[in-house]
Amino acid sequence: MNFSMEEAIAVLERTPKVLETLFTGLSDAWLVCNEGEGTWNASQVLDHLIEGEKSNWIPRLDMILSGGEGKPFPEFDRFAHLNHAAAPLSDRLSEFKKLRGDNILKLQQLVQHESQLECTGMHPAFGSVKASELIATWVVHDMTHLSQIVRVMAGRYREDVGPWIAFLSVLQPHR
Amino acid sequence: MNFSMEEAIAVLERTPKVLETLFTGLSDAWLVCNEGEGTWNASQVLDHLIEGEKSNWIPRLDMILSGGEGKPFPEFDRFAHLNHAAAPLSDRLSEFKKLRGDNILKLQQLVQHESQLECTGMHPAFGSVKASELIATWVVHDMTHLSQIVRVMAGRYREDVGPWIAFLSVLQPHR
Repeated sequence: MNFSMEEAIAVLERTPKVLETLFTGLSDAWLVCNEGEGTWNASQVLDHLIEGEKSNWIPRLDMILSGGEGKPFPEFDRFAHLNHAAAPLSDRLSEFKKLRGDNILKLQQLVQHESQLECTGMHPAFGSVKASELIATWVVHDMTHLSQIVRVMAGRYREDVGPWIAFLSVLQPHR
Repeated sequence: MNFSMEEAIAVLERTPKVLETLFTGLSDAWLVCNEGEGTWNASQVLDHLIEGEKSNWIPRLDMILSGGEGKPFPEFDRFAHLNHAAAPLSDRLSEFKKLRGDNILKLQQLVQHESQLECTGMHPAFGSVKASELIATWVVHDMTHLSQIVRVMAGRYREDVGPWIAFLSVLQPHR
C-alpha cells in the first residue's frame, strides 16, 4: 500500500490547476471534440469532475466516518452533469477549483487521525469499503479523467498523424 | 483532417506549463514510481520530451522543408534520455519550457505558407511523410506522454483503491 493523506492531497490540489493550464484560451475545437455518439468531450469531463465535488467524495467520506456500514451510499449519478446547461468554461474552471479547495479543507477536518482511514462504509455495489480506499479512488478518478481528456483531444488528430499512428499509444483502441 | 498550425501550437505551448503545474512541489514518490522493470517514471518521461525538442521535431521538419525525400531522417533514439544524469526537476521543467518556446518560434519561421505543410520527407520506417503529419505527431506525442505520466502515477494506488479498481479505467491493463 502506498496511500498517504499528504501525497493524496498533493495530487487533488493540482488537478484544477492542471485543467486550467490546459484549457484556458484553447479553441473550442479541442474542447468539444469527442470519441463518437454517447462519449464525453473535454468540457463535459470537467462538468463530471465538478459534480463529483458536489455529491460524491466528501458526502461519502462523511457517511463512512459518521455512520459506518449502517446505510449504503446513495448511487452517484455519473451522468448528472450532462443535464446542465454549461456555463462559460472559465466559470466552470473556477467553480472546480473553489469546490476542490473547499473539499480538501473538509477532508483535512474530517480525517484528524490516521486510524480513521480504516473506518468502513457500505458501497451499494462493492459492500464494505475503507475511508482510505475512497480517498485513493478520488485521486485515481482525477487521473482517469485527465487521461480521458488527453485521449479524447489526441483523437482529433487520428488521421492527421498519418503513418505515425503506429507509434502513438494514445491513439490505439482504448481501455 | 482537423490539423491547423494555430491549434497545434496552442497545445504544444501548453504542455510544458501543464507538466510544471503537475510536477512542481510534488513528492519524489509520485515522480519516481514506474510500472516495473524497464518502464519509465514521470521524471524520465520529461527527459524524453526534452530529448525530442533537441533532436527530433525541428531537425526533421527542417529536413522535410529543405531536403525533401532525398535523405531519410536519422533514427530518433527514444532511449537517449536514459543515459543522462538527471538535473534537478525544476531545472528540467525550465529547460523543457525554454526549448519548446524556442522550437515553436522556429516552427513559425520554417512554415510561412500553408502549402509547405504538404512537403514530404523520408521516414526510415514509414517512407514518405508530410510536414503536417510530423507536426500533428508532435502534438499527439505530447498527449501520449501526458497520458503515460498520469497512468504511471495512478498505478501507485492500484491496491489502495480497493474494489473501486473496477471503475477506474486508468488502472486497467494498458494499451
